[in-house]
Amino acid sequence: MDTIKKKIDMLGEEVLEIIQKGQNPFVKMPVRGSSNVIWDPKLGLLKLGDKSSKRFMFNIAHSKKFMQTMLVAAFSKQLLDEGVHASLREAYYSLKHTIGDSNENTFEEQEESNSVFVDLEVAVDALRDELHINADRRGVAAGDVIIKDRGDRIDLSKLGSGGWAIPGNVEDIELAEVSADFVLVAEKNATFDRLHEDKFWKKHNCVLMGTQGQAARGIRRLIYRLNKEKGLPVYVFTDADPYGWYIYSVIKIGSMNLAHISQKLGTPQARFIGLTVSDIDTYDLHNAAIRAKDVDIKRAEELLKYPWFDHKEWKTELNLMKKKRIKAEQEALAQRHLKFVSQEYLPEKIENKDFLP
Amino acid sequence: MDTIKKKIDMLGEEVLEIIQKGQNPFVKMPVRGSSNVIWDPKLGLLKLGDKSSKRFMFNIAHSKKFMQTMLVAAFSKQLLDEGVHASLREAYYSLKHTIGDSNENTFEEQEESNSVFVDLEVAVDALRDELHINADRRGVAAGDVIIKDRGDRIDLSKLGSGGWAIPGNVEDIELAEVSADFVLVAEKNATFDRLHEDKFWKKHNCVLMGTQGQAARGIRRLIYRLNKEKGLPVYVFTDADPYGWYIYSVIKIGSMNLAHISQKLGTPQARFIGLTVSDIDTYDLHNAAIRAKDVDIKRAEELLKYPWFDHKEWKTELNLMKKKRIKAEQEALAQRHLKFVSQEYLPEKIENKDFLP
Repeated sequence: MDTIKKKIDMLGEEVLEIIQKGQNPFVKMPVRGSSNVIWDPKLGLLKLGDKSSKRFMFNIAHSKKFMQTMLVAAFSKQLLDEGVHASLREAYYSLKHTIGDSNENTFEEQEESNSVFVDLEVAVDALRDELHINADRRGVAAGDVIIKDRGDRIDLSKLGSGGWAIPGNVEDIELAEVSADFVLVAEKNATFDRLHEDKFWKKHNCVLMGTQGQAARGIRRLIYRLNKEKGLPVYVFTDADPYGWYIYSVIKIGSMNLAHISQKLGTPQARFIGLTVSDIDTYDLHNAAIRAKDVDIKRAEELLKYPWFDHKEWKTELNLMKKKRIKAEQEALAQRHLKFVSQEYLPEKIENKDFLP
Repeated sequence: MDTIKKKIDMLGEEVLEIIQKGQNPFVKMPVRGSSNVIWDPKLGLLKLGDKSSKRFMFNIAHSKKFMQTMLVAAFSKQLLDEGVHASLREAYYSLKHTIGDSNENTFEEQEESNSVFVDLEVAVDALRDELHINADRRGVAAGDVIIKDRGDRIDLSKLGSGGWAIPGNVEDIELAEVSADFVLVAEKNATFDRLHEDKFWKKHNCVLMGTQGQAARGIRRLIYRLNKEKGLPVYVFTDADPYGWYIYSVIKIGSMNLAHISQKLGTPQARFIGLTVSDIDTYDLHNAAIRAKDVDIKRAEELLKYPWFDHKEWKTELNLMKKKRIKAEQEALAQRHLKFVSQEYLPEKIENKDFLP
């Protein structure tokens, strides 16, 4: 945390220095957005390129953004000093005020402050969480992991049918004891519930997580940490459709929007365990398959263009989907029988290392 | 559970009896939908009226529904016998198949099976949870409560920054030790996080819950049980807008859709702690107030018509909103200072018993 504080201090000191020289104060920051996002095949991650821009105080087009940047940096500094955290929306309300005797507000909409917080994240090369700005919390975990957090010792294997509600910010938690062998991430909470009731994590000695759709920052960071710090393999289990596969890709290689922090959120070692379109044949799920919509086909075509899906296995699946125009949900496996997913499908895939890259 | 099994058995036996008499088999069930929902001012709950209808096997308009009802009842019976649970979607996939040599499917869309499960809920007067059909899980809890669940002893005061992920089904959990004095339910997870970080539940000895929007069945049932079994008062904290107030009303008096189980899900003793439109004046939140949209005004007018909002306090608030055309979010309180909500706003409201009915 002290490093982050120092970085924010430095940002301020640099501005101060420019002012003392009698020059036009500015902050320099990497350009965000697709024009500056590059795919790093060696890292297996999306990352931000080298383009940067300067934001000047005395420039009609920049001055409001410059002011907002200073406010946001000061706010984060204050959070760090006081050891408290805030949500983006709390930050917005905290920072919004009318300037002096003018009719001008510091921020009109929350989108403005959100965007400047991401700028700050980029500028000081820190996670928003490290700036004490919490992400929305979503997702649940269970398994043989003991976490230390706020003085509590939390045994994720002893939380009944509920599980641990993964917080938006997992920077300060300690992965105290991890005896699990791998992490299984399920797209749907209903799948989590199925596997949890069937004691899948106990029988197969894993950490089980439910993301409830697109994985939130807290979950992605927790997956990252279990992989990086504890060396656990990560298997991602989604629907057999382009949206599910996109969820997988974000966990694995990061996203365009957050390319500047892929190296702290992405887990290139993650593998895809299913569902695939081939599974519909292999496991005889035809009666449970769903006709793909035009938007699914269009999305599949987009995925085919991404270099991170440029593997023969993925090409086969994506083209198969286009050709057959079918997709399937995780719960389709219930058509075989309710526990098919926990007793046969997943164990077989793991046993045979039948993963997609 | 055995009672539920017996009820399903009885449903089957009644049908069998009719068949043995050589008559047209039918199931009788209460009519669902607004035409048969009534407001019970004595209970303070929405409930289903007396209208019922018969669903016959040999009736072209009924026969598919009759068959579906039998399938769904048999499926629930099987779940109960085997001691497993399923999600609605798993149930759909489990039950969907092509009938004999026909081209007819038992169910085409999940909506069909969903609807028949609610029918069964009504017919045997059971919660879906008691039929072992799990609701979507959502929401988080922390506080001085010890729960026993699946052999685990879960101390909700020792779960770090995360909290307990409330399962979709809380029928089988035991509220083993409850030393909290009341339940505080917050509409937003960000508010939960704020209060959790500020140790609100510890300082004020309460159970803190975050619903993440409309409260899911599991949370509503947990609130109900803490109120009914343990006598805890329940205070609900939402945005100052008609959607937030609707969230409150569903926790308190139930909903039109689920009127048949209001008596198992609704908590008429619940009180509304805020935000109100008056709070915007009282706590000087003008700079954080938001202009109400036409849809908000229209919704406020609807709420004014509901008998459960027919209290002078609510009329004042709803009319004030219409007049001033403003609303505000929970996070607006951050404009005073970040901990204003946990250190001043909520403690004052509780101290002064400043609740709306």
